[in-house]
Amino acid sequence: MKPTVTAFERSPDRGRGLARDMRVRWALEEVGQPYDVRLVSFKTMKEAAHCERNPFGQIPTYEEGDLTLFESGAIILHIAERHAGLLPADVSARARAITWMFAALSTVEPPIVERSAAVLLERDKGWYEQRLPMLEDRIRARLAQLSRRLGAAEWLDGEFSAGDLLMVHVLRRLEGSGLLEEYPNVSAYIARGEARPAYQRAFAAQLAVFTGQPAPDS
Amino acid sequence: MKPTVTAFERSPDRGRGLARDMRVRWALEEVGQPYDVRLVSFKTMKEAAHCERNPFGQIPTYEEGDLTLFESGAIILHIAERHAGLLPADVSARARAITWMFAALSTVEPPIVERSAAVLLERDKGWYEQRLPMLEDRIRARLAQLSRRLGAAEWLDGEFSAGDLLMVHVLRRLEGSGLLEEYPNVSAYIARGEARPAYQRAFAAQLAVFTGQPAPDS
Repeated sequence: MKPTVTAFERSPDRGRGLARDMRVRWALEEVGQPYDVRLVSFKTMKEAAHCERNPFGQIPTYEEGDLTLFESGAIILHIAERHAGLLPADVSARARAITWMFAALSTVEPPIVERSAAVLLERDKGWYEQRLPMLEDRIRARLAQLSRRLGAAEWLDGEFSAGDLLMVHVLRRLEGSGLLEEYPNVSAYIARGEARPAYQRAFAAQLAVFTGQPAPDS
Repeated sequence: MKPTVTAFERSPDRGRGLARDMRVRWALEEVGQPYDVRLVSFKTMKEAAHCERNPFGQIPTYEEGDLTLFESGAIILHIAERHAGLLPADVSARARAITWMFAALSTVEPPIVERSAAVLLERDKGWYEQRLPMLEDRIRARLAQLSRRLGAAEWLDGEFSAGDLLMVHVLRRLEGSGLLEEYPNVSAYIARGEARPAYQRAFAAQLAVFTGQPAPDS
């Protein structure tokens, strides 16, 4: 059954693929599962019909027959459990890959989102110049730990997994901040993720929504 | 095989059960699985042996034979997949319960942790009095949405699940802030979680570490 994913009608990142529907699109492309997209505006996503799908009024959501899910992590885990390609078959390796999914969302993403929120909402505040370096040091602490664990490996734990997918996408929000360049192995890791054909297809699809031009392969 | 969980030798919350080992203890108590605890200090948790277990130098970690996991969400999902009592058997209900696990950790917890960090680290800054209400309004937005979805229900989606376990524990960090009292159904929901015998046993066990007195049932 072809699932339906919600995405921004007009993404605030102007098609840079930073919105969280990109993660779900990427996961669906990795497993070769076609999907439909329902676009929502900033207005309609706060209305009752969308809040029925996601009580927090956010994208993405995922509908598959009678099942409605929200939270990109939960959606990707659901996809990964039903299709090969995003989680290893070995039980222990699978549990470790899921650990990296949670690490991306619970440990690495929050300080990155906090910095984005400050840049967006507190730029005109008197404290902004003083607080930004504090926020960036919290991010650096996580990047340094991640860089140390990653070392010279291609992916975080063996083969590419849903843990890498989420981690790469979470880190991408730092593009343009100058922080990633301080950790060359992390930058190269992100580039490896972005080079995957499934990533490229997902990126083109979300960009096509923004530009109004069809994606090359559609 | 009896797993080993790491916890703070001396929790900064003085035994209030807010540290993340509490969630894992609670999950293990819900499924009736005994466990061992290895205590770490703020110093030893940043050292190589612990960073081997968790590259971000945090607690809790979970060791079970050759398998080592970190991230409370991943550990609880691992426990819930192996023992009955934390996830429904129905496939769709299971996916929705996992959605609530991610919602607790990715959507509800970050603004709550951000407030705690500000209270801890920015109390002496000139901007603290101005920023705190902004942070609390972000939390209120989430609490209002959660309150609306919860309504008069006992748990978030049918029977008590790992999603409720994480949500209740995440929300508990707001105790003393005055924010929870604005949402009586959310307060009652937390109280229902805290009243569960498994919660009580887990709470007593973590408190016993802090006081140095054995837990009543040990």
